[in-house]
Amino acid sequence: MSKIITISRQFGSGGRELGRRIAQELGWAYYDNEVVSEIAKSTSYSEEYVHSLLEHRPTTLYPIHYGNTFLSLTDGSYENTMDVYSAQYKIIKEMAGNGNCVIIGRCADQILKDMKPFRIFVYASLESRVKRCKDREEKATEGEKKIARKIKTIDKHRAKYYQFYTGEKWGNPLNFDMMVNTTDQDVEHIAKTIAHMLLE
Amino acid sequence: MSKIITISRQFGSGGRELGRRIAQELGWAYYDNEVVSEIAKSTSYSEEYVHSLLEHRPTTLYPIHYGNTFLSLTDGSYENTMDVYSAQYKIIKEMAGNGNCVIIGRCADQILKDMKPFRIFVYASLESRVKRCKDREEKATEGEKKIARKIKTIDKHRAKYYQFYTGEKWGNPLNFDMMVNTTDQDVEHIAKTIAHMLLE
Repeated sequence: MSKIITISRQFGSGGRELGRRIAQELGWAYYDNEVVSEIAKSTSYSEEYVHSLLEHRPTTLYPIHYGNTFLSLTDGSYENTMDVYSAQYKIIKEMAGNGNCVIIGRCADQILKDMKPFRIFVYASLESRVKRCKDREEKATEGEKKIARKIKTIDKHRAKYYQFYTGEKWGNPLNFDMMVNTTDQDVEHIAKTIAHMLLE
Repeated sequence: MSKIITISRQFGSGGRELGRRIAQELGWAYYDNEVVSEIAKSTSYSEEYVHSLLEHRPTTLYPIHYGNTFLSLTDGSYENTMDVYSAQYKIIKEMAGNGNCVIIGRCADQILKDMKPFRIFVYASLESRVKRCKDREEKATEGEKKIARKIKTIDKHRAKYYQFYTGEKWGNPLNFDMMVNTTDQDVEHIAKTIAHMLLE
């Protein structure tokens, strides 16, 4: 059976970098936006539209998780979101079945539960996440307060999305095998350590 | 400066074992009940009494943390607790100053904040903690429900103790560099990995 690492992460915590580096160290496949791209192809929606759905759905309109929800919305956005999630669900299962890999976000930790992935949650202090976001941009035009607000909004969406589709609280320690705080830590070093641990 | 690892842990999660194994791997000093013993010597209370204070104080009688609290209790137990905490504080500082070490519990992560210890929180599902407790006992006479109740009570005391003396919420991810879920994991393997990471 494939070995899988799933990475859930707070925005700006360096979770994506950690995942990429672990995959590199191990020589495993690495999936993040590619998932979205694949979904876009299979659902025939534009990638941009899919991306916006994944980031911003579900909203507070959907307070309980899939399976307990029976809503009929007139604009079709609910159905679209479900379509996208279903496609994503299938693609993630397929990717995981294809061989060892690292998958970032997208509830993969829950979707692949039966395959017993090694589930990592990456987090950091808000201050260090703001700094990381600023360092990432070539021209840091936004103020720190604005970046902090953005970070909080994105994480709020991620939490809602996760809870909506899995029925689980985002970031609940019991849903992860390891939680890594990247504040003042070297992501490359952590990646090497985790890769080393999973190789043995 | 000494390198320090502090380990906070849920009862029954194997945190003590993890700490001992990490210390063994690294050849570092390891402190747990020894701390209590040292305190007992320096405060002239019996070790048993000190132990019971550390486990069961503070209670809900002390809702806010040291520095903001001005209570005068007639039975002297408050002062005794403070005496013990002060002695413990000094001893932990001394131990940490003496060289590389692993310290279990006792708010060492907060007490040694300035020395930037590597702070680990060890946790596990209640089910696996009950199992670990049963496995630990030679004659497992207690039922699982009773053990689960005991675990919850001890953790409640730990949380109160931690919050009382540090003003911080016990188990808050931001107070740790790494959180390790030992459910279905091999503690020896995790210990080797962490030791390897901190050696480099």
